[in-house]
Amino acid sequence: MPASSLPTTAVIGAGISGLTAGKMLGDYGVPYTCYESSDRIGGNWAFGNPNGHSSAYRSLHIDTSKHRLSFKDFPMPEDYPDFPHHTQVKAYLDSYAEAFGLLDPIEFRNGVEHADPAPGGGWDLRLQSGEERHVDLLVVANGHHWDPRTADFPGEFTGEEIHSHHYIDPHDPLDFTGKRILVVGLGNSAADITVELSSRSLQNEVTLSTRSSAWIVPKYTGGLPADKYYVTTPYLPLAWQRKVLQKMQFMAGSNPELYGLPKPNHKFFEAHPTQSVELPLRLGSGDVTPKPNVSRLDGSTVHFEDGTSGEFDVIVYATGYNITFPFFDPDVVSAPENQIRLFKRMFLPGREDLVFMGFAQSTPTLFPFVESQARLLGAYAVGRYRLPDAATMEQVIDADQQKYTGHVLDRPRHTQQVDYFIYEHDLRAKEIPAGLQRAERLGGGVLAGAR
Amino acid sequence: MPASSLPTTAVIGAGISGLTAGKMLGDYGVPYTCYESSDRIGGNWAFGNPNGHSSAYRSLHIDTSKHRLSFKDFPMPEDYPDFPHHTQVKAYLDSYAEAFGLLDPIEFRNGVEHADPAPGGGWDLRLQSGEERHVDLLVVANGHHWDPRTADFPGEFTGEEIHSHHYIDPHDPLDFTGKRILVVGLGNSAADITVELSSRSLQNEVTLSTRSSAWIVPKYTGGLPADKYYVTTPYLPLAWQRKVLQKMQFMAGSNPELYGLPKPNHKFFEAHPTQSVELPLRLGSGDVTPKPNVSRLDGSTVHFEDGTSGEFDVIVYATGYNITFPFFDPDVVSAPENQIRLFKRMFLPGREDLVFMGFAQSTPTLFPFVESQARLLGAYAVGRYRLPDAATMEQVIDADQQKYTGHVLDRPRHTQQVDYFIYEHDLRAKEIPAGLQRAERLGGGVLAGAR
Repeated sequence: MPASSLPTTAVIGAGISGLTAGKMLGDYGVPYTCYESSDRIGGNWAFGNPNGHSSAYRSLHIDTSKHRLSFKDFPMPEDYPDFPHHTQVKAYLDSYAEAFGLLDPIEFRNGVEHADPAPGGGWDLRLQSGEERHVDLLVVANGHHWDPRTADFPGEFTGEEIHSHHYIDPHDPLDFTGKRILVVGLGNSAADITVELSSRSLQNEVTLSTRSSAWIVPKYTGGLPADKYYVTTPYLPLAWQRKVLQKMQFMAGSNPELYGLPKPNHKFFEAHPTQSVELPLRLGSGDVTPKPNVSRLDGSTVHFEDGTSGEFDVIVYATGYNITFPFFDPDVVSAPENQIRLFKRMFLPGREDLVFMGFAQSTPTLFPFVESQARLLGAYAVGRYRLPDAATMEQVIDADQQKYTGHVLDRPRHTQQVDYFIYEHDLRAKEIPAGLQRAERLGGGVLAGAR
Repeated sequence: MPASSLPTTAVIGAGISGLTAGKMLGDYGVPYTCYESSDRIGGNWAFGNPNGHSSAYRSLHIDTSKHRLSFKDFPMPEDYPDFPHHTQVKAYLDSYAEAFGLLDPIEFRNGVEHADPAPGGGWDLRLQSGEERHVDLLVVANGHHWDPRTADFPGEFTGEEIHSHHYIDPHDPLDFTGKRILVVGLGNSAADITVELSSRSLQNEVTLSTRSSAWIVPKYTGGLPADKYYVTTPYLPLAWQRKVLQKMQFMAGSNPELYGLPKPNHKFFEAHPTQSVELPLRLGSGDVTPKPNVSRLDGSTVHFEDGTSGEFDVIVYATGYNITFPFFDPDVVSAPENQIRLFKRMFLPGREDLVFMGFAQSTPTLFPFVESQARLLGAYAVGRYRLPDAATMEQVIDADQQKYTGHVLDRPRHTQQVDYFIYEHDLRAKEIPAGLQRAERLGGGVLAGAR
């Protein structure tokens, strides 16, 4: 395909989603520019990222083993530990970008400030530098773990409040020694921060409150990274496979009720479990006091739904993140309550010049998931994949949503949930070949016609 | 039995062994005085004990669940966590002493400084106060976890060195931040201290070196304290039961080689395993670097037996403790290389006026073990138990040693190893009834005749 007939393409963000998008666009010979608001790549994995978009705390290790985490085309170094530290994940992304020449197309400190649909198709961009650009294809890879979502409890708390996004370590940015601390939430960040702050050497009193609760699984099982056991197959109904995993949980001691936490509002493996080998021990050692959801704040007092209350100096909100697109006018694209209806988590029906990358909570991990999405993106950009019509896309969105999340309560944190193995197989074996057939039959679609 | 015919009795130490000894002596109506060098009870469990005999660090939780830990006659409070903190163990001992009136017979700040065999039998004591006392029966309960055993590596290390006995927390007595730290050992203290110091928030580089290595078991298995699964029965050979446990270890991921540590010099459950759910994760996360035994020290460099070396600021020796009796002349009683031949871990053949309490490494725990020993002590003191002759005692010592430790390499740390369930059954169902029959046949023994 001659370069002149390729779409001019912009990628927003140089985190894992933007980098893998760039890698695959490059592989297909699609020229693109990546607009990154920071002075470095890595996004969430760039600890202390000056653009404020990293949620990494100093002790953060990825919750997925390197075996699952590696991009298919770029294995992690042999000498990496099973569960790399954030500095190692960043170094891995640096070497990935270096190896595939992904740094050149990046304009650093030049994020997209505004993106408007252009009258004749494509997008008009206004950049951090004040410059304006027009592109045929816009790839949104700005991440969904940087805009803190806080809990909205009735009443007022007069102590200090911090979101896990801003937590660095027990002395930064707040001094967490000798404090009465309430951690709200039971995701991985909540578990990690609770464990770190409840170390007896800090002499804190730590309480953990959760609304939805969560199943807790270890990072290691039988001496192997536990996620080595987590493989779903596309050849059996996902519901059956969940049932098998649900039987296994009794062995793992995953039920949070064993440790005094509330009963989860979902069954085992119906939602992303929390990975912590240490939290059950801290609860069982009396270092962490479990509580149900907060019912009301009143000065330094926090009331819980079981009628108990406690006095606290600090509340840590480990309550997740909003999906936010600060560069879109809300009536163009938005995700109220973290809901955004995307075909294959990538396309808004009716908007063929816009692709989303990495907007999923992929089990077990996001890294190979975005790589899988990038393969479709590359094929799409060169006209080797054509979308179905908008009505079909809407039907598929409903069917996929039912498949991946139909079994869980309708909570904002679960709307993006997908099973990587099923998703990858669906894209590789079904959707990309089907899109290729459509392209061969009908032509490359709007992008090819836009020029 | 009239009080006049009871032996005058001294108990050395008011830790768990001295307290349970006192409890059972009191139950049998034996008047005794407990000589305690500190101003408080609890020994090892009195964190910051002014007599220097506590090895507790600030974050220490007992490695045995409360279900196994409770004295048979005094259960732990219902509201205690599964794995109590040292402050809770101390509070439990305080309430035990209070409930059974064990404080009155204790002379605080008046430990035994010297104990000499008296010419006509019994012991001449010299106390901290300078006073002298004669007793018919001396109960030695001074503990075996207070005199630090250090490793004797060739060469000189020029950095700081500390034994785990003196470790309190990452800032006391040394500042462990931003340091290159070598921890030597792989017992529970080594594991706990390694985990605590390798928290990324402290920004240390932590290396763990072990000579004998150890199997690592979790504190929780399937949501229940793992020691609930550890029950041996006296009705099957212990060697068979170890074989069953050895099969199970593949499920638990207990093999330290999985995480880069050396192969243990013993099979699973042949020696006291190390309990840590966190250490494997720290090793697997690259936060702790595993090494084999140290071969040589040279300035700030430490050489290891695999030919590698590293630079260190501090060495933490978590290398265990010596069995020391500072109040005995060494030719009277001593334990060179931690070896002391004791009948039922209580009696020196040929010395009927001396009883040892708590000198064992009891699996799963020491608390009910010393309570079991105390029952024999009480019966012995009132003449309801008579020892066999010295030659028989020597034979039984050999047979018991073979039963409990015949299968492990001859390391000082394993000489005291006993299996609690087997031991308790042996004392209760066999040895105490046999001693009662001997007493009925031959009289109460030396103690009854000493007055």
